[in-house]
Amino acid sequence: IHSRHPLSPHGLLQTPRPVSCGVHCRELHAGEERPTPSPTAAPERRPFSRVTPEDMAFFSKIIPGRTITDPDILEASNVDWLKSVRGFSEVLLRPQTTEEVSQILGYCNSRNLAVSPQGGNTGLVGGSVPVYDEIILSTALMNNVLNFDSVSGILSCQAGCVLENLSLYLEDSDYIMPLDLGAKGSCHIGGNVATNAGGLRLLRYGSLRGTVLGLEVVLADGRVLDCLATLRKDNTGYDLKQLFIGSEGTLGVITAVTILCPRKPKAVNVAFLGCESFEQLLQTFQLCRGMLGEILSAFEFLDRECMRLLNTHLKLANPITDCPFYIVIETSGSNPTHDEEKLHQFLEEAMTSSQVIDGTVATEEAKIKALWSLRERVTEALTHDGFTYKYDISLPVERIYQLVTDMREHLGDRAKSVVGYGHVGDGNLHLNITSPTKDPDLLASIEPFVYEWTARFQGSISAEHGLGLKKRNYIYYSKASLAVALMGNIKIMLDPKGILNPYKTLPDDLQ
Amino acid sequence: IHSRHPLSPHGLLQTPRPVSCGVHCRELHAGEERPTPSPTAAPERRPFSRVTPEDMAFFSKIIPGRTITDPDILEASNVDWLKSVRGFSEVLLRPQTTEEVSQILGYCNSRNLAVSPQGGNTGLVGGSVPVYDEIILSTALMNNVLNFDSVSGILSCQAGCVLENLSLYLEDSDYIMPLDLGAKGSCHIGGNVATNAGGLRLLRYGSLRGTVLGLEVVLADGRVLDCLATLRKDNTGYDLKQLFIGSEGTLGVITAVTILCPRKPKAVNVAFLGCESFEQLLQTFQLCRGMLGEILSAFEFLDRECMRLLNTHLKLANPITDCPFYIVIETSGSNPTHDEEKLHQFLEEAMTSSQVIDGTVATEEAKIKALWSLRERVTEALTHDGFTYKYDISLPVERIYQLVTDMREHLGDRAKSVVGYGHVGDGNLHLNITSPTKDPDLLASIEPFVYEWTARFQGSISAEHGLGLKKRNYIYYSKASLAVALMGNIKIMLDPKGILNPYKTLPDDLQ
Repeated sequence: IHSRHPLSPHGLLQTPRPVSCGVHCRELHAGEERPTPSPTAAPERRPFSRVTPEDMAFFSKIIPGRTITDPDILEASNVDWLKSVRGFSEVLLRPQTTEEVSQILGYCNSRNLAVSPQGGNTGLVGGSVPVYDEIILSTALMNNVLNFDSVSGILSCQAGCVLENLSLYLEDSDYIMPLDLGAKGSCHIGGNVATNAGGLRLLRYGSLRGTVLGLEVVLADGRVLDCLATLRKDNTGYDLKQLFIGSEGTLGVITAVTILCPRKPKAVNVAFLGCESFEQLLQTFQLCRGMLGEILSAFEFLDRECMRLLNTHLKLANPITDCPFYIVIETSGSNPTHDEEKLHQFLEEAMTSSQVIDGTVATEEAKIKALWSLRERVTEALTHDGFTYKYDISLPVERIYQLVTDMREHLGDRAKSVVGYGHVGDGNLHLNITSPTKDPDLLASIEPFVYEWTARFQGSISAEHGLGLKKRNYIYYSKASLAVALMGNIKIMLDPKGILNPYKTLPDDLQ
Repeated sequence: IHSRHPLSPHGLLQTPRPVSCGVHCRELHAGEERPTPSPTAAPERRPFSRVTPEDMAFFSKIIPGRTITDPDILEASNVDWLKSVRGFSEVLLRPQTTEEVSQILGYCNSRNLAVSPQGGNTGLVGGSVPVYDEIILSTALMNNVLNFDSVSGILSCQAGCVLENLSLYLEDSDYIMPLDLGAKGSCHIGGNVATNAGGLRLLRYGSLRGTVLGLEVVLADGRVLDCLATLRKDNTGYDLKQLFIGSEGTLGVITAVTILCPRKPKAVNVAFLGCESFEQLLQTFQLCRGMLGEILSAFEFLDRECMRLLNTHLKLANPITDCPFYIVIETSGSNPTHDEEKLHQFLEEAMTSSQVIDGTVATEEAKIKALWSLRERVTEALTHDGFTYKYDISLPVERIYQLVTDMREHLGDRAKSVVGYGHVGDGNLHLNITSPTKDPDLLASIEPFVYEWTARFQGSISAEHGLGLKKRNYIYYSKASLAVALMGNIKIMLDPKGILNPYKTLPDDLQ
């Protein structure tokens, strides 16, 4: 199930201490003076209780055999996928049922024990691992499908189902999941919802705010909030489930999800194209939206630098001529003949008008996968290029590449690589900067430059990754003070002791 | 602009007192004993301040010439479109700017004056008119488009823009609004968002929870919450705007909206079909989803009884053979040839397999409008049939017509008409029951029968109309107690004095 991941949790076990750590964690700071702590540095540990033998006895009674203290297993859960943050939890709990989660949280809340909820631990902002000694509450064993209605396409499942497993489950019924992302082999649907994951199908099927129909959530005090509706429409009062979508486990632990699944398309085509300039790429996007219309299911891009990293680190070959920009276009439709006709008409027009200088098209699954991997494996290629500074920016689509160009110019030769890729159709740029090792001077040149640049154009400093630990203090670049203050009020309302995923999402001045 | 409405506000002026009143309002109850008040009856007036001459002077200073006390104009704003509820407000405020709304609410909050926010006053659950003497805060003069980005299709506008005017505005740029509903000629986009309106395009473009990208909201105390992002993706903290979508003006007054608009389809076709049974109708729906796929933009139905009312009251002719069930199917796509081919293949299959017994297809605008009006004008036809009891139910799609059949059997000849129509594609039934005049005995037979029936199948007692005044106390049929209690906490957090749209949405035990 970890096929898309360069590192399985097992891989982590061979590296007991991450070489580089993007966020200054407790241990790294022991004894250090911090006159002006970095905004990404973890704040001081808050006065939560520490786990006692009595606590352990309670957990072992509730979930016998699933209260884990094995240091090797804990290591994998304490460190994030990027190996950029590390917690020091000494206990990992693996409940199987909502009732168990409820008992655990009720107990932790009464004991003032902090809890770090964890799904597939594939997050990129340090939201999915503990910061100090928070108890790790894993959804890994909550992996049952509860129901699937093949008339409506509505799926209900426990939060720990792996996204790719759900896709496979739906395969037989001719449905697909409304979201897809590189981490599909490891990420849990509950974690996807908790981070409001975007991914590769958002352009076509919309965000989880529309496709998630219901949630079951255990609140900080153990009460179970049942909003697990299986209806497309329901206007009876405030839509509470929306509070938990994208709240990164800070307001409650999602235990079950109901989601509306689209029909499996009868035809899928992928085109991989090259452009001379970003302006041409945008023209191609406009042409594409007009000519492919309702069958367009993805419009993604990567730049020449991404291709270089794919070639160098993953030995993936460029299937077309070398170009400054590459586009991945996917169509999904109900009539193969119509779809191919639309795609060919579009390609002819794009080639004739010289918007596109080279391209290749795939209709069979193996070739489609190969073309998609050029886009999906950029993240992985980056991990081999050095220490990576990752930015996930939303901007008006005309602006997205300008940030890469400006950053490249701004950093000069201080960075090893400055690359841009992402979801053009959603105005979502993934800007990544690498250096041979962790480099505080480089970081100081990148931040707050990148955030100020984004704020200047009313962009979002986190389009889809969330804020987690790493970006919590940058929230003011994208949200008004009053909005952030209200978020704080909501946190206090739902988790008055602040035990759920502390130090995450909300800025330190509200924690 | 009132073309779709049988009654313009002017029409109401000729009827100074509604003949029938679905909800017992204050005046109707004066002096009556209410040992067991009906759940729809308004609760006692809460101890808000009453408007004084000093208050009037303040309002006149803030919005000179737009502080309305003319009884004729007030009449239209005190009574809802169905003439089922009546308030007794003596002042109507028409701000033009967010700043004015902010000043008004700041003042009302400090003075403990209740406020009833009002858009186009087209709501069906008594949510848009005052119950007692609440000040009516109308968005009618906040009708400016703020910005439209023709690359991204993102529209920003003030809350008082009439939906149909926005559609006309977008026409030139080749975009459409992502929602459409019968009241389009009067309803305001802010009201649409406040009620989370569904309508005719939800099947294709999804709910407002996905298409609304940003909101500006004035809170009860006058503070302006700026969540007016113009980004498709933004995961920086909790998505506060979702709280206000569907909250019916009880948590804040929406002053501006940013919404993602789809491209105008190059081809639209409408088919009007007849079926022998609801099972055939459902089979047709499944066939249709498979064969029309991504170009299907609406799948609506009405029953034989609806057609009878359209014939009788509006003199609309049935374009096909008399049938127990009629379907309106709309396709919208980017390639006219492909769309027609898909539609004809589907119709051939549906006819051959005898799922459909008769039908007609329209491709030109006039005929399309005529076919659509058979579906859209059912509401209007009902108003001519007598006093109407309206229910807006979400159910698993296989169940939706069973409720109509069961209700018909349950009521026998006590009802004049029992009709069903609605959005099959969304599992949303509009069940309407008429009687010559208001009939408390009939009502007692309908309720709680209809709500208990709905709850038995985990349905929603309000799919898209909201709860307003009329349905607030029925919320427990569709929502768990803990969920309702949390809604109460959110209300207290955002509007501690409860001045915003009191007596609405939340049940009396939380007010």
